[in-house]
Amino acid sequence: MAVYTEISEQDLSALLDEYQLGNILSLKGIAEGTQNSNYVLETTRGRYILTLYETDDVRDDLPFFLALMDHLATAGINCPTPVARTDKEFISYAATRPATIVRFLDGQSIHTPGAQHCAALGAAMARLHIAASNLTKTRINRLGQPYWKTLFESLAPQADQIKPKLARELDDTIRQIELDWPHKLEKGIIHGDLFPENVFFLNGQISGLIDFYFACNDAYAYDLAIAINAWCFESDISFNITRAQHLIRGYQSIRSLAKPEIEALPTLASGAALRFVLTRIADWFDTKNTVLAATRKNPFDYVRRLRFHRTIETPTQYGIDI
Amino acid sequence: MAVYTEISEQDLSALLDEYQLGNILSLKGIAEGTQNSNYVLETTRGRYILTLYETDDVRDDLPFFLALMDHLATAGINCPTPVARTDKEFISYAATRPATIVRFLDGQSIHTPGAQHCAALGAAMARLHIAASNLTKTRINRLGQPYWKTLFESLAPQADQIKPKLARELDDTIRQIELDWPHKLEKGIIHGDLFPENVFFLNGQISGLIDFYFACNDAYAYDLAIAINAWCFESDISFNITRAQHLIRGYQSIRSLAKPEIEALPTLASGAALRFVLTRIADWFDTKNTVLAATRKNPFDYVRRLRFHRTIETPTQYGIDI
Repeated sequence: MAVYTEISEQDLSALLDEYQLGNILSLKGIAEGTQNSNYVLETTRGRYILTLYETDDVRDDLPFFLALMDHLATAGINCPTPVARTDKEFISYAATRPATIVRFLDGQSIHTPGAQHCAALGAAMARLHIAASNLTKTRINRLGQPYWKTLFESLAPQADQIKPKLARELDDTIRQIELDWPHKLEKGIIHGDLFPENVFFLNGQISGLIDFYFACNDAYAYDLAIAINAWCFESDISFNITRAQHLIRGYQSIRSLAKPEIEALPTLASGAALRFVLTRIADWFDTKNTVLAATRKNPFDYVRRLRFHRTIETPTQYGIDI
Repeated sequence: MAVYTEISEQDLSALLDEYQLGNILSLKGIAEGTQNSNYVLETTRGRYILTLYETDDVRDDLPFFLALMDHLATAGINCPTPVARTDKEFISYAATRPATIVRFLDGQSIHTPGAQHCAALGAAMARLHIAASNLTKTRINRLGQPYWKTLFESLAPQADQIKPKLARELDDTIRQIELDWPHKLEKGIIHGDLFPENVFFLNGQISGLIDFYFACNDAYAYDLAIAINAWCFESDISFNITRAQHLIRGYQSIRSLAKPEIEALPTLASGAALRFVLTRIADWFDTKNTVLAATRKNPFDYVRRLRFHRTIETPTQYGIDI
């Protein structure tokens, strides 16, 4: 389900006048994005994705996201390549909203990833980390560990509506994670949201990584911890250690994890689960955004992941080869 | 805003095994359709629209709709051409739902039609009427005049919630229209829903008519009356006689209207407005369908059109040349 702003012929025509993309053949709003409207744009020059940004908060960060995608594409990472306007800028305005155009990526996301998909993802993530490491722009992770306590305080009453005593459990966990959090791991730009829906495959190979709107500077191993949460649990929230093993091996085939990164994995994975518990609680009770309401996901699936990570005693339980 | 059923890799792969469409390159759910899920499907053979039907009631009528589109396409009308399976059938099942694949049509719908768009639409509608006239299949118009009274009875309480005393006004109008209704006009297959969003233009020419899911047998002039409602009012519901004139002239450039058809236009246009008042009231209060809830349209816009048509004393007020 997607947001879907209607674009008038006039707005679209005025927008395309800023680019050299030939003549329009078709424009279709697509069912992707909850904070922005996305369209497949076909012109006589090729296929593109046009995005209109619905929320104000993305505007400040757009130059970072676009510079990152441009940088990654130049470095050979398969990701949406921003298309520059005639004046070399990446950001336009259409229907009073910021708008961008990127090249269309073939491929499809996988709903039920297997071990080989996880291995491919691990390698692609490590390549992304390395390729992004020489970008000079930075972005704070506003959903990172330092922000969880404050974020939680505003959500505590809602947490108990999800499940009685959940607020107390989360409060305790946040405090514990704060004490354990590894602050000295190697940092750089991470994707921050490498869920299966943001990874395209074609003929079994990764054809592209998309949706860089949570990209930020944080610990590299935290990106891996997010992916462990997103890729390595079955639909009944049982842990699939084979997938985690392949994910981590794939990552290490490109970038070796240092010992502190490996040792921190249980804490990082707990933190990653917690981050999604918190934002999903916020989304769950956000009744103003009807699109979000239609696509909101049960926060409890991530409470159960969080509880799993709290039982981990050694990183080998993630299938890591030490 | 569209319905959006997720299709698993397995379901999609099993579906495409029934066709000869090459290998899949991408599949994107698109923001079209409130009763079905639509996807742009790109394969090594070309671009297609895959549709999954969400409601049971369409199943019985699908063979008619597909036969009609196939017949029209063969007759040279630009419309979605159904793609046959290897076994020559048009209807598949995917994710437990009926599914069809049609060829992708270039072009874009027009949000603010001008007189030339209306002229083009009129001619295209008449060509459609003629091309469909030798199809042997038929479909009853279950939203046609004989059904309005029954449909209204279930909606009367809701009508008064929209506006006090609206139920009484609609009841009176339905009775009057029933008395005036022309039963002997030339009939055949009509599109029944030729709103601007169902008409694609490319370089100022009509590149295709889509969404045949209201097609049925009814008076040809009733199709024109629907289009007068859908194309010839400004956003403040003032009537644009120039557009109506061009619409009717365009139609008559291909198929002449008989005198009874012209004389019946005010009644037909009232009936067409009423039909959309009734279905919009039903949709307005249908809280079960969240997609519909997000896209539902104010029924009162069509009450105002209806009131306009009730003031018409002669068809020349629609700009018709007599």
